[in-house]
Amino acid sequence: MFKINENYLKLPGSYLFSTIGKKVAAFTKDNPDKEIIRLGIGDVTQPLAPAIIEALHSAVDDMAHAETFHGYAPDLGYDFLREAIVKNDYEPRGCQITADEVFVSDGAKCDSSNIQEIFSADSKIAVCDPVYPVYVDSNVMAGRTGTYDAKTETWSDVIYMPCTAANDFVPELPKETPDLIYLCYPNNPTGATLTKNQLQEWVDYANKNGSVIIYDAAYEAYISQENVPHSIYECTGARTCAIELRSFSKNAGFTGTRLGFTVIPKELKCGDVSLHALWARRHGTKYNGAPYIVQKAGEAVYSERGKAQLREQVAYYMKNAAVIREGLAEAGYQASGGIDAPYIWMQTPGGMSSWEFFDYLLEKANVVGTPGSGFGPSGEGCFRLTAFGTYENTLAAMERIRKL
Amino acid sequence: MFKINENYLKLPGSYLFSTIGKKVAAFTKDNPDKEIIRLGIGDVTQPLAPAIIEALHSAVDDMAHAETFHGYAPDLGYDFLREAIVKNDYEPRGCQITADEVFVSDGAKCDSSNIQEIFSADSKIAVCDPVYPVYVDSNVMAGRTGTYDAKTETWSDVIYMPCTAANDFVPELPKETPDLIYLCYPNNPTGATLTKNQLQEWVDYANKNGSVIIYDAAYEAYISQENVPHSIYECTGARTCAIELRSFSKNAGFTGTRLGFTVIPKELKCGDVSLHALWARRHGTKYNGAPYIVQKAGEAVYSERGKAQLREQVAYYMKNAAVIREGLAEAGYQASGGIDAPYIWMQTPGGMSSWEFFDYLLEKANVVGTPGSGFGPSGEGCFRLTAFGTYENTLAAMERIRKL
Repeated sequence: MFKINENYLKLPGSYLFSTIGKKVAAFTKDNPDKEIIRLGIGDVTQPLAPAIIEALHSAVDDMAHAETFHGYAPDLGYDFLREAIVKNDYEPRGCQITADEVFVSDGAKCDSSNIQEIFSADSKIAVCDPVYPVYVDSNVMAGRTGTYDAKTETWSDVIYMPCTAANDFVPELPKETPDLIYLCYPNNPTGATLTKNQLQEWVDYANKNGSVIIYDAAYEAYISQENVPHSIYECTGARTCAIELRSFSKNAGFTGTRLGFTVIPKELKCGDVSLHALWARRHGTKYNGAPYIVQKAGEAVYSERGKAQLREQVAYYMKNAAVIREGLAEAGYQASGGIDAPYIWMQTPGGMSSWEFFDYLLEKANVVGTPGSGFGPSGEGCFRLTAFGTYENTLAAMERIRKL
Repeated sequence: MFKINENYLKLPGSYLFSTIGKKVAAFTKDNPDKEIIRLGIGDVTQPLAPAIIEALHSAVDDMAHAETFHGYAPDLGYDFLREAIVKNDYEPRGCQITADEVFVSDGAKCDSSNIQEIFSADSKIAVCDPVYPVYVDSNVMAGRTGTYDAKTETWSDVIYMPCTAANDFVPELPKETPDLIYLCYPNNPTGATLTKNQLQEWVDYANKNGSVIIYDAAYEAYISQENVPHSIYECTGARTCAIELRSFSKNAGFTGTRLGFTVIPKELKCGDVSLHALWARRHGTKYNGAPYIVQKAGEAVYSERGKAQLREQVAYYMKNAAVIREGLAEAGYQASGGIDAPYIWMQTPGGMSSWEFFDYLLEKANVVGTPGSGFGPSGEGCFRLTAFGTYENTLAAMERIRKL
C-alpha cells in the first residue's frame, strides 16, 4: 500500500490566508449587508500600469502569428528580461550580478518555497519570528523542522529569531549556527528594515559560519530611506553567501499576473558544487519557464514609461501607509512600519490576542487585517494592516477604527 | 557549513532537451548556412487560435481597470475554468469528476515533477521504459531511486517496464508491487496507446495492490480511435487509485503560455488522509495560482469557437504525423505511433545507436529529432520525430530523410 509524506500531517491548521479567507466568507454570509474593507492579505488593488498593458497586448499579438509566436521559453528566462533586471535593479546600485545569474520564475512564493530543495535534508534553518509562513511550512513539508509544540507554536529544529518592539524588529545574530537563514527586508509582516551596516553584519556572519542567506527583497520598491539597501548584493561578500528573491507582485501589481526571479551568484558554492548549477538543474527539470506574454510585461516594468508609472503606483500605496500610521497614532494605538514598506504592524489594545483583535475588527469595524500570531509566536499581540487597499477604503477603514 | 541535496549530484548529465539544445547550437555555430528543421522537442509551431487571442486581449483589458482588475487568483484555480474543464473534458465521457477536484496549474511539467512530494520518501516508483525523463529525475532529486548504474542506465530502486516493438509498446503489469505507477497515454515518446480494456487492467491492478497511478494524459486531444480512453476516469474504480495530469500545451498550443491541471478525486486516500487535501495544501503553500489572463485563455479553449479552431489545429499536426509515417515507410524505416499521438517512434537503421543517428541526421539532413535512449535504456536504437513542425518543414524534412 502506498504511503504519504507524513510531514504534511505535522502542519498545524491551514495556510494562514486560507483561514482568514474562510472566516471572512463566513462573516459575509451571515452579514450580507456589511461592507467589508480588506487590509489583510498583501494583495494590490491598482490596475496594471498603461505601459504594462500595452506590452501585454503587443505580446498577445505576437502569439497570434506563426512568425512571432513563442513556444517553450528558455528554462531560466528570456534574455531580454534577465538583462533588463540586471541593468535596472543591480548595475545602478553597484551590485555585480550578471544576466545569467538571474532565474526568472512565476513568483517569489514558488521560489521561496522551492529553494530549500537544493539543500540537504538535515539543514538547520533560522527564521525571524514573526515570519512569512511559507519559509517554515515548506521546510516542514521537507521534514527539516522536527516536532511541533502546539503550546509554544514552535518547531523543535527551527532557530527562531524574535523580532519585537523591544529590539526594534531587528533580529540578533543566532547563537547556534544555522545552515540557512531566511531574511526578508523590508520585512513582511513588521514593515521594519535593516540598514546597510546591519545587513553587512549578517553577510559577514554567514560567510564566517558557512551559512546561506535566503534574502527576500519582494518589497524593495517601497524603500524611501537612503541607508536602507535594496539588494543584499550591495553588501561586500554577499556573492559567496546570499540568494536573493524578487517579485513583480508589489512593485508592479503582478499578484495575479505572476512573475518573479531569484538571483544565485556563481561564487556561491558548497565545496566544488555551485548552487547556481543546482537551481538551474531544478528549473530545467521541474519548471517550464514563465509565459512569454508575462515576461514581456516584466520587460515593460523597466521601460522609462513603466518606471515612471510604477513610481506613482508605489507612491499611491505609501500615501495609504501614511493614512494608516497617522490614523492609528491618533486613535492611540502603538504601531510601526509603513515608512519603507507597505505594511503597518500594530500592537493589539488591552491585551487582546491577535485573533481576538481580528474577530473584533471584523465584527465591529468590518475591517480585515492579519493576526500577528499567524506569522509566529512573537507576533502574538500584534496585527498587520496593509497599504494595498484603495485610498478611499483606507480612509474609510481608519475612520471606522478611530470610532471603535 | 551548509550542505546541498546530494541527490542532485546523482543525476547523470543534463536534462535531455538541454543537451539537444547545446548540440544544435554548436552545429549551427559551425554551419551558419545550414537550415535546420526541428522535429525534436515537442514544441508547437502554430500560433494561438483566434478565440484564444481574443480572450487574452479581453483579459488584459480587465487588468487595466480597477473594477475588473484581478489580483491573487484562488490557489486552486478560478471556478470558471475548473467548471469548463469538467463540463468539456469529463462529463461528456461519463467521468464523475467535480470542479473542486480539478487543480489548475502552470503546466503538466511542474505538476508531474511536484506530485511525488506528497508521497512518502521511500515510495517505490514504476515507469515505462522509455519514459518522459521528468518522472524519474524528479524522484532522483527526492532521493527515491537508489543508485545509478551507468552501464545499464538504470536506477537500482526504480521498477522499469520495458515498452518495445516486441510488446507493441504496452507494458506488462509489474511483478514487484510499486507504490506509484507513472503512465502516459497517448505515450510520449512512443506514440502508442492503451485501449480502454488495457487501461482498466491497470486500474484494477492498482486498486488490488494499493498503488497510485499517475496518469499523464497531455496528448489526449490527438486520439483518433474509438476504443482509446481520453481519461483514466473512463475506467471503473479509477477514483480510488488514479491522479490525472492534463496540459493545454499540445491541444491548444500553450507551450509558451503555460497552463495545465491535475485531477485528484476525493476518494483517493491513504487510510484517512485524502491526497486531494495534501495537494491542496501544497498548492496553498507553494503556489500562487496561474495568471488570470492565462486562465481566461484556458476558458476560451472550451468555447465553441475555440474548440472548432483547435480541432483544426490538431488536424494540421496530425497531417504532419501522416507525412512522417508515410515518408519513413517509403524510405524503408520501421516506425510506429502517429495515429493517436503527435509522436512517431522509429527504429534507427543499421544498428546505429540513438545518439549516433541523432548526429547523423543533424549533420547529413540538418534535421533534429530526439534520441530514444534519452528516454531510457529500452529506447536505445530508437528515435522520436514530432508532428509539431510546420507542414512545409515536415515535408522538407521527410524529403531530406528520403534522400539519405
